[in-house]
Amino acid sequence: MSVHSDSLSIRTRGKGTYEITSQVEAILRKSGIRTGQVTVFIQHTSASLIIYENADRSARVDLESYFDRLVPESADYFVHTAEGPDDMPSHIRMVLTRSSETVPVIEGGLALGTWQGIFVFEHRRAAHTRNLVVTVMGSA
Amino acid sequence: MSVHSDSLSIRTRGKGTYEITSQVEAILRKSGIRTGQVTVFIQHTSASLIIYENADRSARVDLESYFDRLVPESADYFVHTAEGPDDMPSHIRMVLTRSSETVPVIEGGLALGTWQGIFVFEHRRAAHTRNLVVTVMGSA
Amino acid sequence: MSVHSDSLSIRTRGKGTYEITSQVEAILRKSGIRTGQVTVFIQHTSASLIIYENADRSARVDLESYFDRLVPESADYFVHTAEGPDDMPSHIRMVLTRSSETVPVIEGGLALGTWQGIFVFEHRRAAHTRNLVVTVMGSA
Repeated sequence: MSVHSDSLSIRTRGKGTYEITSQVEAILRKSGIRTGQVTVFIQHTSASLIIYENADRSARVDLESYFDRLVPESADYFVHTAEGPDDMPSHIRMVLTRSSETVPVIEGGLALGTWQGIFVFEHRRAAHTRNLVVTVMGSA
Repeated sequence: MSVHSDSLSIRTRGKGTYEITSQVEAILRKSGIRTGQVTVFIQHTSASLIIYENADRSARVDLESYFDRLVPESADYFVHTAEGPDDMPSHIRMVLTRSSETVPVIEGGLALGTWQGIFVFEHRRAAHTRNLVVTVMGSA
Repeated sequence: MSVHSDSLSIRTRGKGTYEITSQVEAILRKSGIRTGQVTVFIQHTSASLIIYENADRSARVDLESYFDRLVPESADYFVHTAEGPDDMPSHIRMVLTRSSETVPVIEGGLALGTWQGIFVFEHRRAAHTRNLVVTVMGSA
């Protein structure tokens, strides 16, 4: 068994989902691992990771609409407001989704289901550079 | 250290939770791993995984009632509606729970707490076959 | 590659977040692993784990306020009520957060972002002892 660690940077342009499946696959291929797993980790507290339906863009529109209602920017009881109305909601949205996602590796490929993709879920309005660590563990 | 990968298929019969702890334990035993971890991954976007209270069935009834309220089928702003009223909610319920769960392995067994079990959380009304990948990593 | 397993006990004093980053770092240092990952697992169904903003305490106050509204103790449809009004909400809050968190290890340290910490999220009102398993995998 061996372990390979790599980094990935993604430029986001406001709230929404950004697919990173092909970038993660490229790191997996480079590792030479054939059986094991890949873990993606995001080093931020106002953006997160999800595995989500990647076929129909409307499912991603509804996801964003839902989260805007689930964690509204206007909550009158928030006290952590110094960094703008989208900051505190971004921390809660991060807690309700993931800081890391793990995908099994079979025969050298990501063993995702037919409709699954890996996404960065950006929770801030402004553009950001998001840093991720990709760790591949397994046997060649 | 070594890695073992196996698959598991579960037949669900509508919305709700389906315990898979014993099937995951069987794969762990077969692997011969004594120290390490097991990761279960579900290859779908309308069913998910949770670790949950497995002693009292009423806790699972309330979980289902809660999710039916948290992500209602009737949301009038959903545009991803072609596959039925339970489809878009199923994607959101999946995002709010997990695509993978990891459990440590100690002395050859799953190191779950007294009341913890591993469950497939089915979000569609119809019966489905759900495919999972179980990856065991560690030392014998 | 090698695997190291250790346990950790945390005493909580009611609902809220308890940072455990330094305890996890201590276990990582002891393991001698330089590249790989650490997975923390909590063996309970009424407390959970999150990776969260650790710089400004007000973000943790708002998180607790939000969860008290998201999963209210007074839901009239709950049937699992024998263990008190904070019990059933604690199971749901656990499902909406994590039973395990994984952090990459780079150059012998936790590769957390600048503002990230690892926290136990206690969902019960009473004080509890919470047991965790920390698994470190990787190469020296």
